[in-house]
Amino acid sequence: MSDAFDNLRPSRRAFLRGAATAGVGAMAAGTARAETPDPLITEPQEWAQSFGDGVDATPYGMPIRFEDDVIRRNVEWLTADTISSINFTPIHALDGTITPQGAAFERHHSGAIELRKEDYRLMINGMVEKPLVFTYADLERFPRENHVYFCECAANTGMEWAGAQLNGAQFTHGMIHNMEYSGVPLRTLLEEAGYDTAGKWVYVEGADASSNGRSIPMEKALDDVLVAFKANGEALRKEHGYPVRLVVPGWEGNMWIKWIRRIEVMDAPVESREETSKYTDTLADGISRKWTWEMDAKSVVTSPSPQAPITHGKGPLVITGLAWSGRGAITRVDVSRDGGKTWETARLAKPGEKRALTRFYLDVDWDGEEMFLQSRAMDETGYVQPTKTQLREVRGLNSIYHNNCIQTWWVRPNGEAENVEVS
Amino acid sequence: MSDAFDNLRPSRRAFLRGAATAGVGAMAAGTARAETPDPLITEPQEWAQSFGDGVDATPYGMPIRFEDDVIRRNVEWLTADTISSINFTPIHALDGTITPQGAAFERHHSGAIELRKEDYRLMINGMVEKPLVFTYADLERFPRENHVYFCECAANTGMEWAGAQLNGAQFTHGMIHNMEYSGVPLRTLLEEAGYDTAGKWVYVEGADASSNGRSIPMEKALDDVLVAFKANGEALRKEHGYPVRLVVPGWEGNMWIKWIRRIEVMDAPVESREETSKYTDTLADGISRKWTWEMDAKSVVTSPSPQAPITHGKGPLVITGLAWSGRGAITRVDVSRDGGKTWETARLAKPGEKRALTRFYLDVDWDGEEMFLQSRAMDETGYVQPTKTQLREVRGLNSIYHNNCIQTWWVRPNGEAENVEVS
Repeated sequence: MSDAFDNLRPSRRAFLRGAATAGVGAMAAGTARAETPDPLITEPQEWAQSFGDGVDATPYGMPIRFEDDVIRRNVEWLTADTISSINFTPIHALDGTITPQGAAFERHHSGAIELRKEDYRLMINGMVEKPLVFTYADLERFPRENHVYFCECAANTGMEWAGAQLNGAQFTHGMIHNMEYSGVPLRTLLEEAGYDTAGKWVYVEGADASSNGRSIPMEKALDDVLVAFKANGEALRKEHGYPVRLVVPGWEGNMWIKWIRRIEVMDAPVESREETSKYTDTLADGISRKWTWEMDAKSVVTSPSPQAPITHGKGPLVITGLAWSGRGAITRVDVSRDGGKTWETARLAKPGEKRALTRFYLDVDWDGEEMFLQSRAMDETGYVQPTKTQLREVRGLNSIYHNNCIQTWWVRPNGEAENVEVS
Repeated sequence: MSDAFDNLRPSRRAFLRGAATAGVGAMAAGTARAETPDPLITEPQEWAQSFGDGVDATPYGMPIRFEDDVIRRNVEWLTADTISSINFTPIHALDGTITPQGAAFERHHSGAIELRKEDYRLMINGMVEKPLVFTYADLERFPRENHVYFCECAANTGMEWAGAQLNGAQFTHGMIHNMEYSGVPLRTLLEEAGYDTAGKWVYVEGADASSNGRSIPMEKALDDVLVAFKANGEALRKEHGYPVRLVVPGWEGNMWIKWIRRIEVMDAPVESREETSKYTDTLADGISRKWTWEMDAKSVVTSPSPQAPITHGKGPLVITGLAWSGRGAITRVDVSRDGGKTWETARLAKPGEKRALTRFYLDVDWDGEEMFLQSRAMDETGYVQPTKTQLREVRGLNSIYHNNCIQTWWVRPNGEAENVEVS
């Protein structure tokens, strides 16, 4: 619990208790709703007088119908079609750090394909002693690891370079998810094939029609890259690369090849389409940065936000959001309510874990006045998330990818929030 | 990586590489499948020549159809009907530690009810300065915490007291799940109501027709109990208590009241049906133990197991399973392949976390002979999971609940596994 919250406790408690009516009270939205009895308390309810669903009703469960707005959404004008496109995780409505697979954003280059385990093959070729092909059953025989990692598309927040654009954390920052993966270290498979130490790169390629392919330095391939087949305990979903995807911790999502079919050990990078004309950062002078794989530290307030307005008026308010860094663990998140003039250190729900989402909270007593809400992440390397102005000074206005600037939500006295730019 | 595995590496590598054919090889099930080219490698595949699903295909995703056997299952003869009944998590098919909500076991006493957030009320009454009623929106205004905890039904493995009964880890040990919860500490709400320090118990009660209710010592209520509204990042599913359930870390699942509607501070326990005639342990002399809330350390090999046989023949084999303790963190898991005569220390995927599932692995070179597979968990208190014989010596044969004995799978040379008893 943060010091900030501790300071607020007396007034908050006084407020909440004041809202209770005599005996049994009902309070909501900052005011006592009724001095008269609340029938939801005093009367027997329908759901307490009849049976609910049995244990055979949903062999595999889905969210309750009242939550049917907590879904992935795409932005129609963003891409020419929905096949090579992206949708967004509803981060404004989530809490904690794990992203359920069903709500985790998708980015496809030629659509999500259906590939049976029995038909799955993974080839390792190129500069190896002996090229190998693994079936799915083969992969299950190697020692496995489990890790929670975030996956962020390099284009996340990309639409915000020139100015505030999309009105919701889901759309500005929802190209991200965070899951627990089970899989085999890529290192193990490369050793199995006897990789040539003169091979400084691996080229990894998907089985879908786009053959989405990327070059990865051998140093990273031998470090923490996973050939994963489970996410959050169960099989990868179709749209997340069933049956096998690459997990490249901390690095841009485009490298996390889905339906991975081939890994070639090479002495030079391929310079594929996805690492030249795409996923590079064109600077002000027209020169493009490349090999910007590592996702810099970043954060966003998920609530309140445009899709998650304050509905309860002034008083106790939970400000919460997510922070992450491709370089390691988040060590601190600051929150500003005045557009960056003053900052308060947020409470991290848990100590930051390397290359995984960190949930932060700031428990405040809102005075009901407008706020310009911002969050600012710091990671274990000492890196501090930049303002939009700072980022533009270095990168100009031509970029799409790797926008990790500080986000601002303008929260009005009525609790509604809007995407704005203050720096 | 365990020492055991390191010792096996040379032979395993030799095996796997030997299975590759010249150039590009295809290996599976311990033998090279074909010297002739594998068309799944040499021919362009259908899924690489057409578009897959677009990003608007599944706003909320479900498992791919090839995984439609990875579901909760109930055992028809176990209960008189499916309304007051239980189903089982498919732990034999999962990996890692997180249980997706959709696959997490359900136990209902009068079925899973549908309760809107708008209709939700939580009353705190009894020995408090001022009784309070919270709406869902009220609860969202208190400081939140995030924790991963296992929830195990006290009846898990209960059918195995007299002898090996159900043939599958899902059925013997699947009354368990493990999720990341977001919620408000119960302590905070009790403080809000101004609980009387003379109140040594709280009675917690669900909103469903069964009014499932349990007494919890105040010491636990003030310690780590959560009033939770999110699991694995998103809203609780209907069957897990939407919109609000109690999380009672390390304690039997029956106390994790779903659709929680009332918390009464009392000076004595209620001695409700669920804590007298049910959820107590009748010993050999007919006397019943009560207040056995804490789930003792336990583990099970999830694969290989009857529902997850070995299909690849001898050679490299991943033995994996789950371990947990209601008393704290798992510190070590041993695995026996000979019914408990000799033990090897398994590799924990991560250091054990308090009152959460721990995944263990033992990477072995299977000789193709029969095995009597067992696992034995140890926790930070020094407690060691007992054999069935040891447990019966203390508890007799009348018990149903709190069976945490060592489980044995008899794995035959053909890879099939069966639930057997060796101690």
